[in-house]
Amino acid sequence: MIDGTQAEYVRTPFADNSLYAFPDNLTEEAGVLLSDALPTAHEIGVQYGGVQPGDTVAIVGAGPVGMSALLTSLLYSPWQAIMIDLDENRLRMAKGMGATDTVNSGAENAVEKVMKLTDGRGVDCAIEAVGSGPTWDICQGIVKDGGHLANVGVHGKPVKFDIEKLWIKNLTITTGLVNANTTDMLMKTCCSGKLQAEKLVTHRFDFNDIEKAYDVFKHAADEKAMKVMIDL
Amino acid sequence: MIDGTQAEYVRTPFADNSLYAFPDNLTEEAGVLLSDALPTAHEIGVQYGGVQPGDTVAIVGAGPVGMSALLTSLLYSPWQAIMIDLDENRLRMAKGMGATDTVNSGAENAVEKVMKLTDGRGVDCAIEAVGSGPTWDICQGIVKDGGHLANVGVHGKPVKFDIEKLWIKNLTITTGLVNANTTDMLMKTCCSGKLQAEKLVTHRFDFNDIEKAYDVFKHAADEKAMKVMIDL
Repeated sequence: MIDGTQAEYVRTPFADNSLYAFPDNLTEEAGVLLSDALPTAHEIGVQYGGVQPGDTVAIVGAGPVGMSALLTSLLYSPWQAIMIDLDENRLRMAKGMGATDTVNSGAENAVEKVMKLTDGRGVDCAIEAVGSGPTWDICQGIVKDGGHLANVGVHGKPVKFDIEKLWIKNLTITTGLVNANTTDMLMKTCCSGKLQAEKLVTHRFDFNDIEKAYDVFKHAADEKAMKVMIDL
Repeated sequence: MIDGTQAEYVRTPFADNSLYAFPDNLTEEAGVLLSDALPTAHEIGVQYGGVQPGDTVAIVGAGPVGMSALLTSLLYSPWQAIMIDLDENRLRMAKGMGATDTVNSGAENAVEKVMKLTDGRGVDCAIEAVGSGPTWDICQGIVKDGGHLANVGVHGKPVKFDIEKLWIKNLTITTGLVNANTTDMLMKTCCSGKLQAEKLVTHRFDFNDIEKAYDVFKHAADEKAMKVMIDL
């Protein structure tokens, strides 16, 4: 008996509070992503971040949750959607999914670049989708007066909050664990084709190849892996 | 020529954007407090902090702005209004103005005490009205899951944000400089008697005694001074 869901039988307390019928025209890939990455990114990133039509949104971290934040922010028709990461392949992938601009924070100063991209104003919404000090610093360096900083990343250490500069900026900073209250609307959005979640699944493996699947995911950058699915 | 408003003539750019007629039944004391302390506390503390009827609100710092946060939070009928400060006299004053509980953070562990006062839940809204690391730490230590931390204090240094504990708590943290968009409603509330701002003015001096007024304010704790007014 182990915690987690890689088992023959799984006990889910209060499962009936969060079960949805699987629609005929939903892809399996979208179904998997709707279980966590999409509602996390949408609720804790995009909704808490207050993304509105015409906004400039920047997402720091182009992993599955950051990419889900990109895809779900696009539902609200922002003007600019800037993706920031260290991995060129993931940035290219983000561009292909609708990011208007990408910034490689390993190759250039991300704060300066975003300021340039926004005519010195900064972004309406900065979404932290990593959970580290350097990515938090990018977020607090690019959010504009009156803007939102939505933290989605899971952190292991405290961060330095530059409140001596930011107290005057009328910022809203949010944190959170997924509520899953928008799963139903996201599911409908996937069914309608407005949200092409399956683009995030780069690899599928048969259950018998599960060791290989883990190996690919462990070397995600080299393998150009985003989300890996295992078929039962 | 010096910056500031202690001069025979004052030039106020765009003054017509923020001028209000002085109502007959408004006290001079309320008029003075409506120029900054009351709207700052109300907008950046109470409104950004989302104070609702039945809430528990804690205010860290019982200076004029903290006291204004107490008075304006009471307009929204919270269940508990907890005032936290180091000065017993100011805490007594807060109690007289409607605080349900007071905590002397010099004499006891403020976080533990607030947790005890809230049956271990923490507060719906923590208002930081000082601008220092220790008072920020009290706020981040007492805010409950889904709660608000509204920073009103002007900080001179960064603070340590315990995001490794707070990322999961669905918090909303706000910062800001007064907008002055609620000056008119606060003025009406003062005129109606619902907001007794004049209680905050403990001393009045004639203009000729301005040096004495400054001396009293410099030794605010000893003089039991909250807000000092100077008559022209």
